[in-house]
Amino acid sequence: MSNSTIGIGLLGMGVVGGGVATVLDRNREQLSALVGRPLELKGVLVRDASRPRAHQLPAGIITTDPREVLDRPDIDIVVELIGGQDPALEYIMKSVSLGRHIVTANKEVMARHGPDILTEAKGKGVQVLFEAAVAAGTPIIAPLLRDLAANEIIDIHGIINGTTNYILTRMANEGADFNDTLVDAQNLGFAEADPTNDIEGIDAAYKLAVLATLAFRARVKGTDVYHEGITKLTSRDFLHASELGYAIKLLAIAERADGAVQARVHPALVPQSMMLAKVDGVLNAIEVQADLTGKLLFHGAGAGSMPTASAVVADIVDIARNVAGNSVPPSNLTLSDSVSVKPISELETRYYIRLTTADRPGVLAQVGRVLGDLNISIASAIQKETDEVAQSAELVLMTHLSSEAAMQTAIERLEALDVVADVGNVIRVEEW
Amino acid sequence: MSNSTIGIGLLGMGVVGGGVATVLDRNREQLSALVGRPLELKGVLVRDASRPRAHQLPAGIITTDPREVLDRPDIDIVVELIGGQDPALEYIMKSVSLGRHIVTANKEVMARHGPDILTEAKGKGVQVLFEAAVAAGTPIIAPLLRDLAANEIIDIHGIINGTTNYILTRMANEGADFNDTLVDAQNLGFAEADPTNDIEGIDAAYKLAVLATLAFRARVKGTDVYHEGITKLTSRDFLHASELGYAIKLLAIAERADGAVQARVHPALVPQSMMLAKVDGVLNAIEVQADLTGKLLFHGAGAGSMPTASAVVADIVDIARNVAGNSVPPSNLTLSDSVSVKPISELETRYYIRLTTADRPGVLAQVGRVLGDLNISIASAIQKETDEVAQSAELVLMTHLSSEAAMQTAIERLEALDVVADVGNVIRVEEW
Repeated sequence: MSNSTIGIGLLGMGVVGGGVATVLDRNREQLSALVGRPLELKGVLVRDASRPRAHQLPAGIITTDPREVLDRPDIDIVVELIGGQDPALEYIMKSVSLGRHIVTANKEVMARHGPDILTEAKGKGVQVLFEAAVAAGTPIIAPLLRDLAANEIIDIHGIINGTTNYILTRMANEGADFNDTLVDAQNLGFAEADPTNDIEGIDAAYKLAVLATLAFRARVKGTDVYHEGITKLTSRDFLHASELGYAIKLLAIAERADGAVQARVHPALVPQSMMLAKVDGVLNAIEVQADLTGKLLFHGAGAGSMPTASAVVADIVDIARNVAGNSVPPSNLTLSDSVSVKPISELETRYYIRLTTADRPGVLAQVGRVLGDLNISIASAIQKETDEVAQSAELVLMTHLSSEAAMQTAIERLEALDVVADVGNVIRVEEW
Repeated sequence: MSNSTIGIGLLGMGVVGGGVATVLDRNREQLSALVGRPLELKGVLVRDASRPRAHQLPAGIITTDPREVLDRPDIDIVVELIGGQDPALEYIMKSVSLGRHIVTANKEVMARHGPDILTEAKGKGVQVLFEAAVAAGTPIIAPLLRDLAANEIIDIHGIINGTTNYILTRMANEGADFNDTLVDAQNLGFAEADPTNDIEGIDAAYKLAVLATLAFRARVKGTDVYHEGITKLTSRDFLHASELGYAIKLLAIAERADGAVQARVHPALVPQSMMLAKVDGVLNAIEVQADLTGKLLFHGAGAGSMPTASAVVADIVDIARNVAGNSVPPSNLTLSDSVSVKPISELETRYYIRLTTADRPGVLAQVGRVLGDLNISIASAIQKETDEVAQSAELVLMTHLSSEAAMQTAIERLEALDVVADVGNVIRVEEW
């Protein structure tokens, strides 16, 4: 084994950075044996050098000046753990331009600028790995690129936001409503003080953009992904779904359709018999359907400092083995410019519709006419509870395969009907 | 891209070989782009050159003479798909000695001789990959070696034999008995005419040996793995298990214990809430618990020509990328000689015991005394159905954590009791 070390620069020293430093330190020997040369942390960019840290770093490597990491010629691999777009993107691009390899856990940067970064990296002959950007320590990016290399990916269905899956699991189990469960989740540390990114599906949309880019070798950006959050779900939706044999999950779905890609994040009714319906709590799971393998499920923790550090260090080792062997393999990702992203309006799926209607004859006929005029065919209709005081009833419809554009028009027309007091919720039904 | 091809030699042209040839052919361009050089099938060893084949091979590359593949200097990667130990092992060792890289789907050879092959390969600087040997196209070996590189593996729990999981799923759902279900599975092509390797847990033991070797970097051979099949399970066991909140699965378990490894395959009661309890039909699933990531589940098809071909071609591409880059990375597997394998008698676990007893007072006292004398403590006892004609009753016991050695003695002593007509079954209870 050569004694010359492989230099690592760390940008950001939050809990994940601390985890990475700890793992590099604790597993020093094992990792050196794997790589063939020792790994050495040579520069760590922090915001506040005086802050006490759980993981003790060697003197002299901590800095608040990014140039002291980015410009150091003995750093082979820059590990970006700052998060968010700025200044992470700038540091990554600068590092690539200087010929450094990159490991990042940054879903936002990869979702918004991944294709550009990868193209730039290819030109410079450097590797950019980002296993931790989706589902933390649960392998999904390396499997897509390596293990499924011989496959055409057909579709991806994922539960890739632990906060929302925790909330939905509790709503399903306890009959609780969204707002109460969110507050509980915040108190328990499973949801952030500003939960917008999670509960509106933005976080999942970033991650799905990354997965869809790799799976379909297409330039899918976060903004291409339709997203709809979980805030409109009520305990009644869970009750009806369960009676109909479904769970409600926030699904991230990407699929190939007529030479284009469709990518969307929204709540969905999932048959209770499917594996994704059985994924509970803060866990993540991603089901990939590919032409040779059929359906594969990857299931595990989707967050946390140590699971994330696991993915980051695996990527570091991957690159370091190539650096040690003096051979960076050709990029295993060639993105096509000809694959477009389909808008959500072109979706065809089944729908669950919950309406509050007047409790009098002829309601179903009027609702049915609105849907029928738009070619939306009803698969089943159940009139649920009646509120005698308000003289209202609850109507739950399941449709056959219908067009999203038609459904959006239908919702408007239903809301305009005298006999419809409220379109309580419309949820897509997914079976694959 | 260099035009010089990377030569592939194929040993064996059954359904998997046909799948591999088809995939190499159909995905020629995509694979060349990934590798940086074209892949070319240069020699195919078959048993009968005149047999018609679904996949047409170029003239002149089919041979019945192994030397025409093994000795060809323009073959870089030898793909062994013969199966079984002989002559596959000999061909692999010969190829390694000649400096060829190896891809194999051969669980038996890897379980019995994997450590020797890997040691030899390391000396020769060649790669030996075998993703297809366990769970076919479901990634598990690459994730263990690559994605979990920074982790210590704590344990592995797998359902890695599709035939038995199919039988157990039907027994659970239909209340059917083992023999009827086996015949059905044979008629449907899910079980072989001679099902011994599957139903006795031998196939799973081979696969577990491979996984345990990688996970614990120990020399675990197939013969080190305790195996017990599913033939003794009855519909009554499924009934009781279900009432107690458990599924019955044939589990393959490997765990680190006091510096040693314990590896075993046997039927087990698994709490219905656990993911492995929810894996139904011919599918495979492997749950890996690691120190950084926590529990990860890999779930998918465990057999079939195309899923297997997916794994084989992914391995070929992995090696070919290194060949194209003129750089074979150092082996990422160093096996320790100091990790021993614990015998099953040293196991500590919980047990389910089903007894047919005399239907008279004092039975539970006598049974309890036998167990108590051996330090086996009863967690719950339920007297089930009584057969008034035979004057017998069924007694189902769940124990606390107990020693396997004590339990084996207990079974003998229980069988010797006058009041025990039959020790119907003893099944280990696994929660992790």
